[in-house]
Amino acid sequence: MPNTRLLQQLEFIREIDKLKYIFRKSRLFGSDRHENDAEHSWHLAMMAVVLEEHAIAPVSLLRVIKMLLIHDIVEIDAGDTFLYDTTKDHNNTEEELVAANRIFGILPEDQRDEFIKIWQEFEAGESADARFAKALDRLEPVMQNASNGGGTWQEFDVPKEKVLNKIQGISRGSDTLWAYTQQLLDKCVADGLLKA
Amino acid sequence: MPNTRLLQQLEFIREIDKLKYIFRKSRLFGSDRHENDAEHSWHLAMMAVVLEEHAIAPVSLLRVIKMLLIHDIVEIDAGDTFLYDTTKDHNNTEEELVAANRIFGILPEDQRDEFIKIWQEFEAGESADARFAKALDRLEPVMQNASNGGGTWQEFDVPKEKVLNKIQGISRGSDTLWAYTQQLLDKCVADGLLKA
Repeated sequence: MPNTRLLQQLEFIREIDKLKYIFRKSRLFGSDRHENDAEHSWHLAMMAVVLEEHAIAPVSLLRVIKMLLIHDIVEIDAGDTFLYDTTKDHNNTEEELVAANRIFGILPEDQRDEFIKIWQEFEAGESADARFAKALDRLEPVMQNASNGGGTWQEFDVPKEKVLNKIQGISRGSDTLWAYTQQLLDKCVADGLLKA
Repeated sequence: MPNTRLLQQLEFIREIDKLKYIFRKSRLFGSDRHENDAEHSWHLAMMAVVLEEHAIAPVSLLRVIKMLLIHDIVEIDAGDTFLYDTTKDHNNTEEELVAANRIFGILPEDQRDEFIKIWQEFEAGESADARFAKALDRLEPVMQNASNGGGTWQEFDVPKEKVLNKIQGISRGSDTLWAYTQQLLDKCVADGLLKA
C-alpha cells in the first residue's frame, strides 16, 4: 500500500482543484471573461520565469514561483479579495489564516509548515523574493485592464491616484516594471480608459 | 522608454493568455467542467512541488516546473492533442514545432532558444527532469477520471489495457506514483469506471 505521506499529498492535489472555481474581478486580456485563480497563478509563474532579470534585487526564481503558485490557495475558503474593495483588510486576515491552516494542513507536517511559511512571506512582502512576486501580482491586472477597455477601473470607477496607491508595491519589486507601469497608466489616461 | 527586450517579454506575456481558452478533453475533479491548459499547467506545477521526493531520479525542481508551465503553450496554435486520439501523432509534430517557433519567437532570442530547448526536452521524455514531468502529466487525468465517474475512459470507451499502454511513462518517472496508479486503475475497474 502507498504510504500515508503520499496519500496526504494526493489528497492536497485533489483539494486545490477548487482554485479553478474561484473567479477574480479581473478579466482576461482583451476579453470580458473573468479570470480564475488557478490560471492567474499560472500566468504569474510564467511572468516570473520571463521577467526575473528585472527584479530590483537578486531573487531565487524557484522560491518566487512557489510563492506565486500557492499565493491564492487560501481563497478556496476565504474567497477572492478584490484590490479596490475598501470594506476588507487585504493583509493576512484571520479568515485567510484559518484557510491556510486547513488547506495546507492536508499535507504532511513538513510541507504544511513550508507552505504556510512561504505564503506568509509573500503576504508580508518584505523579502526580495516576496517583493518581486507581489510586483508581478500587481502588474498583471494593470496589463489586463489596459487591454480590455479599462476593465475593473471602469467597472468600479477607480481613478488613477487610487490605482497608483494600490500598485505602488511594483516599485519595491522592480524599477523597470514600475517605469513601464507608470507609462502604461499615462497612456490609459490619454486613451480615456482611466480617470486622471 | 522601456527597452525592446522588455516589450518583447511583455508581448509574450499577453500572447500566452490564449492558453486559457484551450480546453482539454479531461474534466475537473468530481465535475463535468472541462479543464483548460492554463489551469492544467498550474496544477501540474503544484504536483511537481508537492511530489518531487517521489521522482525516480534526482531532478531539478525549477527545470521540471518550467517544463510543466510551458509544455502546452504550443497548443495555442496547434490545439489540444487528446491522449487517446489514434489519428494523430503525439510527439513533437511539425504543427507543434511551427507553433513553438512562432510563440516562443515573440521572446528575446536567448529566451526563445531556452524555451524551445526545454519544451523539446519535455517532448523527448528522456532526461530525469522530463521523465518526472511527463509522469505528472499522465497522472493528473487518471486521478480526474477516477474522481468523475470514469471521465474520458467512459466517454471514449477506452479499456484498461489501452490506458496502461498510454500512461506507462509514469513508471519511467516515479516508482511510487506508478505503484499508486496501478492500484487506482484496479479500483476503477472494480468500481465499474474502467473496462477490464
